Amino acid sequence: MADKVVLLSSWASVFGLRVQIALAEKGVDYEFREEDLFDKSPLLLESNPVHKKVPVLIHNGKPICESSIIIQYIDEVWTKGPSLLPKDPLQRANARFWADFINQTIYPCSSRIWRNKGDVQSAAKKELIGILKQLEGELGERPFFGGETLGYVDIVLVPFSRWFYTYETFGGFSIEKECPKLMAWVRRCNEKESVSKVLPDPHKVYERNCGLKKRLGLE
Amino acid sequence: MADKVVLLSSWASVFGLRVQIALAEKGVDYEFREEDLFDKSPLLLESNPVHKKVPVLIHNGKPICESSIIIQYIDEVWTKGPSLLPKDPLQRANARFWADFINQTIYPCSSRIWRNKGDVQSAAKKELIGILKQLEGELGERPFFGGETLGYVDIVLVPFSRWFYTYETFGGFSIEKECPKLMAWVRRCNEKESVSKVLPDPHKVYERNCGLKKRLGLE
Repeated sequence: MADKVVLLSSWASVFGLRVQIALAEKGVDYEFREEDLFDKSPLLLESNPVHKKVPVLIHNGKPICESSIIIQYIDEVWTKGPSLLPKDPLQRANARFWADFINQTIYPCSSRIWRNKGDVQSAAKKELIGILKQLEGELGERPFFGGETLGYVDIVLVPFSRWFYTYETFGGFSIEKECPKLMAWVRRCNEKESVSKVLPDPHKVYERNCGLKKRLGLE
Repeated sequence: MADKVVLLSSWASVFGLRVQIALAEKGVDYEFREEDLFDKSPLLLESNPVHKKVPVLIHNGKPICESSIIIQYIDEVWTKGPSLLPKDPLQRANARFWADFINQTIYPCSSRIWRNKGDVQSAAKKELIGILKQLEGELGERPFFGGETLGYVDIVLVPFSRWFYTYETFGGFSIEKECPKLMAWVRRCNEKESVSKVLPDPHKVYERNCGLKKRLGLE
């Protein structure tokens, strides 16, 4: 039986984009179904009844939820492509640690930048720069978090780079200036087709977020 | 070379207790070092510079942080003992999903029960009962979340059961009455030596938390 792979996501979702990069790295064909986050499909609600969130990967009718878990699933099922997680248990634990760090920190902090103004925004901006500098320190002189090749932590982090323009424009700062080595890493990731073909235009993400602010009454 | 395994933890830490159960399931000998959470050791601060939290497992001098990640590491390194995560990728993803659900929900919610009074406490109590009922639904008629044997999700969840007396006493409610099937699962877990020998007396946990409330000026 041929695999049937469906991804329920939204085009600008950093979490959904992670899954798209992982599928591209593994060369898996799939059907992308855009979800309206203000009017979620019955399939999404039924496939992720606990969180009711994108992304959900539906593989031969079975749903898998939560982007970090989906990436590990993809790595375990499609073993023919490049390994996304390292083979060594200590390195795997380290990759999981930094993926978890990214999950816990960047999204809540960066949302406060573009959804707020004044002191809340300033504090969030400072916090985000601190987080990105920690990640830059962890990267060190390696080309990728995965070492010589794109790996799990790279896939978890790089979709945020398409939101940097949104953070910078709303927050009035430059990530290039604060974290030049991290931005060099972003450019290296962009040289990979699995990244450049999947990730959206930062200006489109910005426009979408301007529209979202209006819709949420945050202006 | 014989393995040298050191665990930095605190006797009542639900997160540390998870690691102790996983090590007991695998039959791994280790040295337990009690940390004073108000005066953390230089070794802890150096081993977990990002979060500065227990537990940290130090295996042959290499630190591994974050309890869920440590359990997966233990499962990958000590392959001779019983498997903690299922072998099937879909079942593994499901186990990771529920471990993640437990990590995201129970601790922040239950802390609000014993650290607060009034409306905050009432809301948290209601929320906790909802979370436990969701877990009871996921367990269904199986003996363990791991199926016929104790597994990853069981190990992640069961240490909280020794805190139930604290939640019930401060919150004035009965988890047995609300979630009888979950409490039957707790009793099944307690029949395992890896659980009963590791987990502390609920009354001691309660006394510790009463002392902690005083120390934190929350009374």
